[in-house]
Amino acid sequence: MERLRYGMIGGGPGAFIGAVHRAAVRLNDEADLVCGCFSGDSEKRRQAGEELRIDPSRNYSSYEEMAKQEGAREDGIDWVTIVTPNLVHAPAAKLFLEQGINVACEKPLCLTVDEALGLQKAARENGCLFAVTYTYTGHVMAREARQLVRDGVIGDIRMVMGEYPQDWLLDTLETISEDNMPWRADPKLSGRGAAVADLGTHIENWVNYVTGLKIDSLACNLDVFGQGGTLDNNVEALVKFDNGATGIYWTSQVAIGFDNALKIRIFGEKGTIEFVQEENNYLKVSLRGEPPRIYSRGSGYLTPEATKYVRVPTGHPEGLTEAFANIYKDFAQALFDKKAGKDVNENDYGYPTLEMGLAGVEFFNKCVDSSEAGATWVKVEY
Amino acid sequence: MERLRYGMIGGGPGAFIGAVHRAAVRLNDEADLVCGCFSGDSEKRRQAGEELRIDPSRNYSSYEEMAKQEGAREDGIDWVTIVTPNLVHAPAAKLFLEQGINVACEKPLCLTVDEALGLQKAARENGCLFAVTYTYTGHVMAREARQLVRDGVIGDIRMVMGEYPQDWLLDTLETISEDNMPWRADPKLSGRGAAVADLGTHIENWVNYVTGLKIDSLACNLDVFGQGGTLDNNVEALVKFDNGATGIYWTSQVAIGFDNALKIRIFGEKGTIEFVQEENNYLKVSLRGEPPRIYSRGSGYLTPEATKYVRVPTGHPEGLTEAFANIYKDFAQALFDKKAGKDVNENDYGYPTLEMGLAGVEFFNKCVDSSEAGATWVKVEY
Amino acid sequence: MERLRYGMIGGGPGAFIGAVHRAAVRLNDEADLVCGCFSGDSEKRRQAGEELRIDPSRNYSSYEEMAKQEGAREDGIDWVTIVTPNLVHAPAAKLFLEQGINVACEKPLCLTVDEALGLQKAARENGCLFAVTYTYTGHVMAREARQLVRDGVIGDIRMVMGEYPQDWLLDTLETISEDNMPWRADPKLSGRGAAVADLGTHIENWVNYVTGLKIDSLACNLDVFGQGGTLDNNVEALVKFDNGATGIYWTSQVAIGFDNALKIRIFGEKGTIEFVQEENNYLKVSLRGEPPRIYSRGSGYLTPEATKYVRVPTGHPEGLTEAFANIYKDFAQALFDKKAGKDVNENDYGYPTLEMGLAGVEFFNKCVDSSEAGATWVKVEY
Amino acid sequence: MERLRYGMIGGGPGAFIGAVHRAAVRLNDEADLVCGCFSGDSEKRRQAGEELRIDPSRNYSSYEEMAKQEGAREDGIDWVTIVTPNLVHAPAAKLFLEQGINVACEKPLCLTVDEALGLQKAARENGCLFAVTYTYTGHVMAREARQLVRDGVIGDIRMVMGEYPQDWLLDTLETISEDNMPWRADPKLSGRGAAVADLGTHIENWVNYVTGLKIDSLACNLDVFGQGGTLDNNVEALVKFDNGATGIYWTSQVAIGFDNALKIRIFGEKGTIEFVQEENNYLKVSLRGEPPRIYSRGSGYLTPEATKYVRVPTGHPEGLTEAFANIYKDFAQALFDKKAGKDVNENDYGYPTLEMGLAGVEFFNKCVDSSEAGATWVKVEY
Repeated sequence: MERLRYGMIGGGPGAFIGAVHRAAVRLNDEADLVCGCFSGDSEKRRQAGEELRIDPSRNYSSYEEMAKQEGAREDGIDWVTIVTPNLVHAPAAKLFLEQGINVACEKPLCLTVDEALGLQKAARENGCLFAVTYTYTGHVMAREARQLVRDGVIGDIRMVMGEYPQDWLLDTLETISEDNMPWRADPKLSGRGAAVADLGTHIENWVNYVTGLKIDSLACNLDVFGQGGTLDNNVEALVKFDNGATGIYWTSQVAIGFDNALKIRIFGEKGTIEFVQEENNYLKVSLRGEPPRIYSRGSGYLTPEATKYVRVPTGHPEGLTEAFANIYKDFAQALFDKKAGKDVNENDYGYPTLEMGLAGVEFFNKCVDSSEAGATWVKVEY
Repeated sequence: MERLRYGMIGGGPGAFIGAVHRAAVRLNDEADLVCGCFSGDSEKRRQAGEELRIDPSRNYSSYEEMAKQEGAREDGIDWVTIVTPNLVHAPAAKLFLEQGINVACEKPLCLTVDEALGLQKAARENGCLFAVTYTYTGHVMAREARQLVRDGVIGDIRMVMGEYPQDWLLDTLETISEDNMPWRADPKLSGRGAAVADLGTHIENWVNYVTGLKIDSLACNLDVFGQGGTLDNNVEALVKFDNGATGIYWTSQVAIGFDNALKIRIFGEKGTIEFVQEENNYLKVSLRGEPPRIYSRGSGYLTPEATKYVRVPTGHPEGLTEAFANIYKDFAQALFDKKAGKDVNENDYGYPTLEMGLAGVEFFNKCVDSSEAGATWVKVEY
Repeated sequence: MERLRYGMIGGGPGAFIGAVHRAAVRLNDEADLVCGCFSGDSEKRRQAGEELRIDPSRNYSSYEEMAKQEGAREDGIDWVTIVTPNLVHAPAAKLFLEQGINVACEKPLCLTVDEALGLQKAARENGCLFAVTYTYTGHVMAREARQLVRDGVIGDIRMVMGEYPQDWLLDTLETISEDNMPWRADPKLSGRGAAVADLGTHIENWVNYVTGLKIDSLACNLDVFGQGGTLDNNVEALVKFDNGATGIYWTSQVAIGFDNALKIRIFGEKGTIEFVQEENNYLKVSLRGEPPRIYSRGSGYLTPEATKYVRVPTGHPEGLTEAFANIYKDFAQALFDKKAGKDVNENDYGYPTLEMGLAGVEFFNKCVDSSEAGATWVKVEY
Repeated sequence: MERLRYGMIGGGPGAFIGAVHRAAVRLNDEADLVCGCFSGDSEKRRQAGEELRIDPSRNYSSYEEMAKQEGAREDGIDWVTIVTPNLVHAPAAKLFLEQGINVACEKPLCLTVDEALGLQKAARENGCLFAVTYTYTGHVMAREARQLVRDGVIGDIRMVMGEYPQDWLLDTLETISEDNMPWRADPKLSGRGAAVADLGTHIENWVNYVTGLKIDSLACNLDVFGQGGTLDNNVEALVKFDNGATGIYWTSQVAIGFDNALKIRIFGEKGTIEFVQEENNYLKVSLRGEPPRIYSRGSGYLTPEATKYVRVPTGHPEGLTEAFANIYKDFAQALFDKKAGKDVNENDYGYPTLEMGLAGVEFFNKCVDSSEAGATWVKVEY
């Protein structure tokens, strides 16, 4: 069995999301981590390399060096996973693309639309594949939802309600200072948006991924609750879609009692689909005039398009790691096909694409634009 | 035991809400229905009078006549309950007030702010009490929520999320025509708003009732889905409150899979309260840093202010009728006190007041104003 | 409209269940309370009579007197409602039956099978109707469950899981003494069983009412947790039904965290039905190979047999009082038919019958027999 | 970083549970699969070896050979994972123990108590560690439950309600024949019990693991629903514990609408704990006189004993694979300690022990004994 090789930027000791990416790749057992640039701190880099059994010669001190070296090696990596603070996404991704190295990048893709367009250009010019790891599209029941919409089960879509409240950053966000500044709330590292970029883009993407709808315009209010912060920690937006549907997106980092409660409801002429990330093994499907049904991951009545991602039987919960793993499974399939010389259309594989990453960057920037203008309506281009 | 006498306008055969009002009053067993003007149709009037055992001489053919006669009788009614289409609320209520007869009126209070101000003036001038029957404030757990907020349990309020989706009118609303025009969707009977007036005001009122917050400004998008209708059946609004809090209100009559799903979440600095009308015997209370708790109606840990409304023990569900009955219980208490010559401050009794009715009329009219202006922000005055 | 007259034994000041019966009858608005023997305490009797506006000449000091007088009057009561401690049920009911007065009696019907058989004889000989107010059969969704089973929707039944945990008596039951002895735990007033008679019979009856299955044999363990008590407060039983199905019944008065959590699951060859009393407006129906469905009271897809009991629209909760009211509605219909000279088969009306009352008495006595014999298997006759 | 080596018996192509074990070990990233005897079919063996990148010289055709060779190698495996049909567990485990190789074995441990005692003897004599992979003890919230009980949070335990309904084998079990005989229902491969051994032992073990209570005696009814089968697919048992507590265990493979619904409720004098496997990221904790609380995995208020197993933040679901991985994490820790020459007490590490495996074998055999004797009470020894 052929295997893939990959490297990682970011994800050193203490970084939660890098560890999840690696666990997801291990779960699939199709690729090996062979190099990385895990931290700006040399001791942390060394520690990470040792823990991850990286050949010291491929434990790089800068991503520039890593891109260059890996681009030059015969046995260089098939892709790089980027899990740094948002600021670094675009410059790093660009370097790897220019070396012909495929990229899997955390969301939000980058800070500005210009950056995102630059990445799109670089990917195209260098023939690279590019996945944006919007986790929640990876759940089996996200795939089921997408297929049900495509099959017309709920008919034309009229409204979309998306919400994503959290409270884990609450104490931190209320007492922000020079000494207590999480990167997510630091404009220098995160750009113009915090919650709207970190969480809001998940809503925006999930809806687009599942429904295919694009936002036409939006009006957004950003709040900054607590002391010392300058970036939003509560986001309220009205949206209008290209097909005439309307919707509401809300996300918050100061919603006491909510862990990580992404919830999307899609209302069509013929039915409604409801997905709750914290109950990712289920989907609530209500058809007009019928009692609501609770679809359970792994059941025989699911569509083949969802079933192929099922790892453990119905009633045996899958979770976050499997969602990531499904995205990597899709990406690996595309990479295998590319290596085999097949013509790869990234939209056919299931992983969120660079185009979706661009839409997310556009989304959160337009939310900030709107809010700065008094929560007035702004047009969304991408 | 002294008892009260009341009459009813509207609520003839087939009218659902009038029957619920009467059932609620019977549940309390403090008052008797002695007269009415139940329908514009004489046969329906006769039938209602017979079923309800109304003395034929007090089964009136017009509310004007009813107000005049009852105002003149020694043993006239203590209050009139108005459950007609919205159009009739204001003119009818005014006549009774002018006869010194107290009023309990369905929501929305009336069609325009001017009408509402007129009622306020008439009530004041005639020394009348006036309850607006916003049902969902009558639930024991609505009273508990109000008291918890007053006790500072969740601290200063930051955000409010209110939603109220339904689907029972779906088929009707999608096929509106001259021959198929429910009064709720008929501008001649309901005024400028449908869902926003019928359902939206419930959200607006519940939030105000429980938190005391008033809306400062709002931006609202109204949708008309389906054929033939002109009034809104889907409402999406951003709101800002007088204390700086923000929020989102959504209501819909075309949300497949939702029965009558009023749900309000109030987020404070110290905690969150969540109320779901369809699970009205419970309240979810999440305090900062602690696991969410499920409060159950009738339990020993409730506040006395809620406990006094408990009718049946914990775990034995109460429902819609009890909510109405609690409002009538409050209203009857105020009426008894008034008859006993006490000084009555309507805000002390728990029932929703004329002032709240006015706020509702202002709310839905400003929502329409905003929507007509492209969902732009409008100032809310009352 | 013809109306019925009824009287009540028990249900004086402070007695919860008598008040619920009266509220239920008021809700239906088909009958008037005209007499009673509300308490053994003369002051409480007087107080109750005044509150309930009973003619003092019909506010009786003994049920014997009441039966005699009411039996003799031209305008005597159509039925008597018995809500006394269990001990009194049989002797009181017998006297009224002998006067030709129909009876609605709380469960458990009485203390012994002999008493129950005596009542059956008396009812038959005097041509009287007899309802046993097993509340939870009155819920609309209990009627829906019954009809679905009758329609064969879930096929032949294989297993039944019934449970009914509570904790409201916890403090009381753990500190029982001469001075602190609730009648429910007092063998002199309640007979040989406490939880098994008070709660266990609800499970037994609901299952029988909905499925038609009868228990063939059972093995039962009774626990007495806490100090001072002699009657059971925790009941665990294995049951076998006449059709070969098996099941488990559990009820408890010392189950911390449970209010009044009657829950029945009926498993057939083709599907499963789940009813939870605290969520009485819903029914979970799972058909083989399909996603579980949540049926909602008042929806268009319900059977006509359930729909006819719906009082308020879907999504507007009904509760305990409506359940009682539905039983009284059935009973009143039978009484009207009897008065109109029709041939009345009590099994056609929906209310729980004397035969079901007998089965309950047999059930709890056989549970006690089994437990006393070391939780061994005993045959159930009725 | 030192790593461990392991081998696997069973778990070839198409075998679900072997794949989960391997995924769990990969998730931990502390050990490598270096050998195996994956199937009795040589082609499947070859295929598995290739997929899993096993050195062909260590892809054994018999477990006897594997035990001998691996026992002899310098770089032999640190442990063997046994995921064969139940019949093979004991003979295979014994051989490895005799080679001084530690064992992780699926449940039920083996077919008879004698076999289990033999394993206990062999493990002791050869100084081997032995984990029985009762998955559901591996969930973070199982660890939390255990610690809460140990901390006395719910006081002395009075009752335990355990249930575990499924329906995925329904079609198969109802049409068993020579040609359609899942090994789980085949007495030759599974011993005297099917559901009771496969699922019932999970309840028995989880309760013992969390509470420390041992079953003193039980009465059990086994049902065989459908055609052709001889082993139980529905299990109903009353149990009594060594501390005087009582309980009910139910498990079923023919419970339509239930996926894998292990649910355990533990009732103490001071509180109740409820765990539902399908919602494994939560625990419901009800303290006397207080509203029930929903504990969420990863939250700050959890005990350190649970928190140390948390892999991803609160609100990001973990599932089945993490539960297995936690057991392997415990086991690996014990193996590292043993290799480091430390004195290892297996009860200190958190993984389910051989003693628990023995208790499970005793449990299901005594259930069969009881059922064969008419569901009478039998004493439980281990």
